[in-house]
Amino acid sequence: MARKIVVIGGVACGPKAAARAKRLDPTAEITIIEKGNDVSYGACGLPFYLEGEIKDISELNATPVGIPRSPAFFKAVKGVDVKVKTEAVSINRDRKTVTVKYLDAGGVEELPYDKLVLATGSTPVRPPIPGIDLEGIHCLKTLEDGSTIKSAMEGAQGKKAVIIGGGLIGLECIEPLIKAGFEVHVVEKLPFVLPALLDQEMAAPLMGHLKSKGVKLHCNDGVEAFEDDGNGRVARVKTEQTAIDADLVILAIGFRPVTDLAEAAGIETGRMGIKVDAHMRTSDPDIYAGGDCVQSWNIVTGAPMYAPMGSTANKHGRVIANNVCGWNSTFSGVCGTGVCRVMGFNIARTGLTERDARAAGFEVITALTPGPDRPHFMDESKPINMKLVAEAYTGRLLGLQVLGPGEVLSRVDTMAALLKMDGTIDDLADTDMAYAPPFSPALDNLITAAHVVQNKRDDLVRSYTPAELKKKLDDNEDIILLDVRTPPEVEQMSLPYDQVRYIPLGKVREKASELPKDKEIVCLCKISLRGYEAAKMLEGAGFDRNNIRVLDGGIVAWPYEKVIKS
Amino acid sequence: MARKIVVIGGVACGPKAAARAKRLDPTAEITIIEKGNDVSYGACGLPFYLEGEIKDISELNATPVGIPRSPAFFKAVKGVDVKVKTEAVSINRDRKTVTVKYLDAGGVEELPYDKLVLATGSTPVRPPIPGIDLEGIHCLKTLEDGSTIKSAMEGAQGKKAVIIGGGLIGLECIEPLIKAGFEVHVVEKLPFVLPALLDQEMAAPLMGHLKSKGVKLHCNDGVEAFEDDGNGRVARVKTEQTAIDADLVILAIGFRPVTDLAEAAGIETGRMGIKVDAHMRTSDPDIYAGGDCVQSWNIVTGAPMYAPMGSTANKHGRVIANNVCGWNSTFSGVCGTGVCRVMGFNIARTGLTERDARAAGFEVITALTPGPDRPHFMDESKPINMKLVAEAYTGRLLGLQVLGPGEVLSRVDTMAALLKMDGTIDDLADTDMAYAPPFSPALDNLITAAHVVQNKRDDLVRSYTPAELKKKLDDNEDIILLDVRTPPEVEQMSLPYDQVRYIPLGKVREKASELPKDKEIVCLCKISLRGYEAAKMLEGAGFDRNNIRVLDGGIVAWPYEKVIKS
Repeated sequence: MARKIVVIGGVACGPKAAARAKRLDPTAEITIIEKGNDVSYGACGLPFYLEGEIKDISELNATPVGIPRSPAFFKAVKGVDVKVKTEAVSINRDRKTVTVKYLDAGGVEELPYDKLVLATGSTPVRPPIPGIDLEGIHCLKTLEDGSTIKSAMEGAQGKKAVIIGGGLIGLECIEPLIKAGFEVHVVEKLPFVLPALLDQEMAAPLMGHLKSKGVKLHCNDGVEAFEDDGNGRVARVKTEQTAIDADLVILAIGFRPVTDLAEAAGIETGRMGIKVDAHMRTSDPDIYAGGDCVQSWNIVTGAPMYAPMGSTANKHGRVIANNVCGWNSTFSGVCGTGVCRVMGFNIARTGLTERDARAAGFEVITALTPGPDRPHFMDESKPINMKLVAEAYTGRLLGLQVLGPGEVLSRVDTMAALLKMDGTIDDLADTDMAYAPPFSPALDNLITAAHVVQNKRDDLVRSYTPAELKKKLDDNEDIILLDVRTPPEVEQMSLPYDQVRYIPLGKVREKASELPKDKEIVCLCKISLRGYEAAKMLEGAGFDRNNIRVLDGGIVAWPYEKVIKS
Repeated sequence: MARKIVVIGGVACGPKAAARAKRLDPTAEITIIEKGNDVSYGACGLPFYLEGEIKDISELNATPVGIPRSPAFFKAVKGVDVKVKTEAVSINRDRKTVTVKYLDAGGVEELPYDKLVLATGSTPVRPPIPGIDLEGIHCLKTLEDGSTIKSAMEGAQGKKAVIIGGGLIGLECIEPLIKAGFEVHVVEKLPFVLPALLDQEMAAPLMGHLKSKGVKLHCNDGVEAFEDDGNGRVARVKTEQTAIDADLVILAIGFRPVTDLAEAAGIETGRMGIKVDAHMRTSDPDIYAGGDCVQSWNIVTGAPMYAPMGSTANKHGRVIANNVCGWNSTFSGVCGTGVCRVMGFNIARTGLTERDARAAGFEVITALTPGPDRPHFMDESKPINMKLVAEAYTGRLLGLQVLGPGEVLSRVDTMAALLKMDGTIDDLADTDMAYAPPFSPALDNLITAAHVVQNKRDDLVRSYTPAELKKKLDDNEDIILLDVRTPPEVEQMSLPYDQVRYIPLGKVREKASELPKDKEIVCLCKISLRGYEAAKMLEGAGFDRNNIRVLDGGIVAWPYEKVIKS
């Protein structure tokens, strides 16, 4: 008897599982059930459709050679039946059937399965804010959403857009709106953007960049109501702190897993989605689940996490197909890797932020290492800032944040590989990363970050994070900030605090005796490499090393007040 | 008593070891001995000086804030004495001294050491070819070489340049010469360029690219003599196969470690440099060595290798400083990672090529996976070709080659991290690489390559490499090449063999019965993803799977004859 496989959900995980299962078992009878009209599309491309880089939205569900991924395509090429506009209304585990409703044709049917795959995906979070159902308030999830927003952008009466939520999708919507001439406001409940990806000090330069591009950020603020224009259209967004006129609102607060079908069938779910084991099997051994509807594992902490990503969904689909066809195949989890580009600024993260790591109970060492992404003598060289987080005692790598106009992908992917392998800072320091001036510095920024963490572990350098130093300055502590940059650099940018003293690095050995030995001295330069040299010089000159500190990341990574000569 | 450290060699490893040793032990007395006039310069930047991207050669030995790394700088900032124009003439191990000769001032001196660091670097290979000492034949290694070649380029009578050696340095010299209006010839002894980095099939597209840019490649050819113009200048390069007029010759055959000083002192050396242990310690426990003068370890094979890279030299310096100052610090080796860009074409390699791996005795599985570096619907998307090499039984990762106009750095660095950690293809498949359309496809090319290797390991797909298929075609075997691309694709590019049959993938299920069941059928498409689907369809349709094969990498990776419609 041919194996009957039913897959609920037609995007990413579902089609991947179906197509591979058919390759593994050509005799299997496989059916994909999809509520919507489209299957197997690249939802992650939607912002680039809005922006205009993708001219025709149909490119998002065509193959690389331009063939639409339609039910006919799936039948002819993949040997899989696809039923669109078809809703799965119940899973009847006792009979091993799924009851489906044909949304266009009408009628219901009960489809038998030997193995069932749940790839029901996620849905945008829509909190019960007054006015949330007004016209002009959009989510971005499906191709239909993409078309609707594109039309709304073109037809908007005015040019004021409000994005609710400063996460990945929210930020990806900025550039299309700016390019289309909108004034863009972003309302974020937390004190900084990308709060799920970044520590606050790392978000600071991104926020500065967005402001410099004209984006109005409203952090630490929440929406209280959407106000009507009298005709059922949104006209204003009323927040806790202000009110913003709006011709267009994009709701990008996040996604939640679609689990109702599974729950109704008595399949175990957690707070973050359908529970699956390492084989992507649910609490029912004949039912598998993957993609945005499941609760993932964090490789670093071993704890459940929600990680709706197209990359992960595809991997899930492959593992599910293997198991459904009788193999024994596992998936080892994710580390929350994410990347995005906003107005020429790249942001990437993998593993844990410092905040995540501390919340998970880790004692950590961090390095804050801004620097050029290539040797400074190359025209292509652009700055990036980097924060590496490692476990204090073992040196185990925990996470990386890297952002700036420069290259971030190679660094975040390298780190993701090391996190997968449970690597330490010593492993990272010995990783043979590629070097040539058009690509990277001789010691890659990531290797330098490993060295900084090693130096801290080995008590060669004692430092303050920007937040720690800021607190001391705010408390008016009697400390010295020793800035060892050259006079032209100081002219360009400086810290506006009375505690600052200037001695260029080359003069520190000579002038050390002018500094008091009984005060705390915090050494810094542009990125604190020379700051570190200065600290070692002072130690060598007999200063009590308990009094000597370095400012992590130097003036470049300082997220607070700076005097910048424009 | 202050610890006395003498460092022989003023570039990369030497200065790094010296500066860090001073930070670890501020009381140490440290001296760097350098035969040349410059210290601590970025030799890897020289091609970009020749090209004009770097305007002033002094940028290559300045700090990022523009301070020259002179002896005065080293004294003031690093606390290290630097003696330039000073040659170490002997190491007197019994007395623990180094005899140095002052090249400008004259005179000799014996410098005592507690610990000695050999960072004597490498020297270009100059084989005893007749005429090699003629004027106009240059090597590229030092700042002085850079200045000399730059002047020679500007002053050349004609515009014909011959590069001897198609390795990294040779290829990096192409673009500066082309930009300066030279006709560029490259003479390479082996059948293809970058023979130390690539397998032949991977070099093919690079060679095609170079030819399309007007570069004249003379592979499988060696220099027999350099001919005189009658005035002591080179005028022609006589090779085994031809003779090439030359106004300028760049000799880039490779580098060899400088070991004479060490050898004279009775320190153990190997064929590939000074022998060191994992602590970078030579056979004399008070003498360390690092950088281009030492024999490295290959992490993958555990065997000695020669790997002169600025990145590695800097890492060596750090480890040496740790050990010299009494710590216990090791370096775990390299995997021969390399990257370069030539005329808009990126090439990267880490670990072993298939050839290397087989020579080292490994049974291997390889994947050849060309594809776009980003989703096909993004404007920025550019092709790359990739070859992944893994150990057949364990699935252990062995090496990666990746090249093309698209992004290569993130892929090679990710792989380098996995090689460092002794990862397998299953680890790679589960690596949480970053995904967003401006950066990468949902399943990164590297993940896809892992999946292909998994499929081969699991006997889901049987394939021929291009070389294996070519042999069958050359032998006129009675096989079918089943090309399942669409008619417009076929029109664009096709294979000129009688054995080719065309059935677009969507028709394969329907038309399978038209194909003979007793012949070998090799399925292919653009990149062999659809070829793989077709193979599975034929197997499903009852074809004997012993007769069904897929062509690795499809028509894109086919390095032999193709009909291309321009």
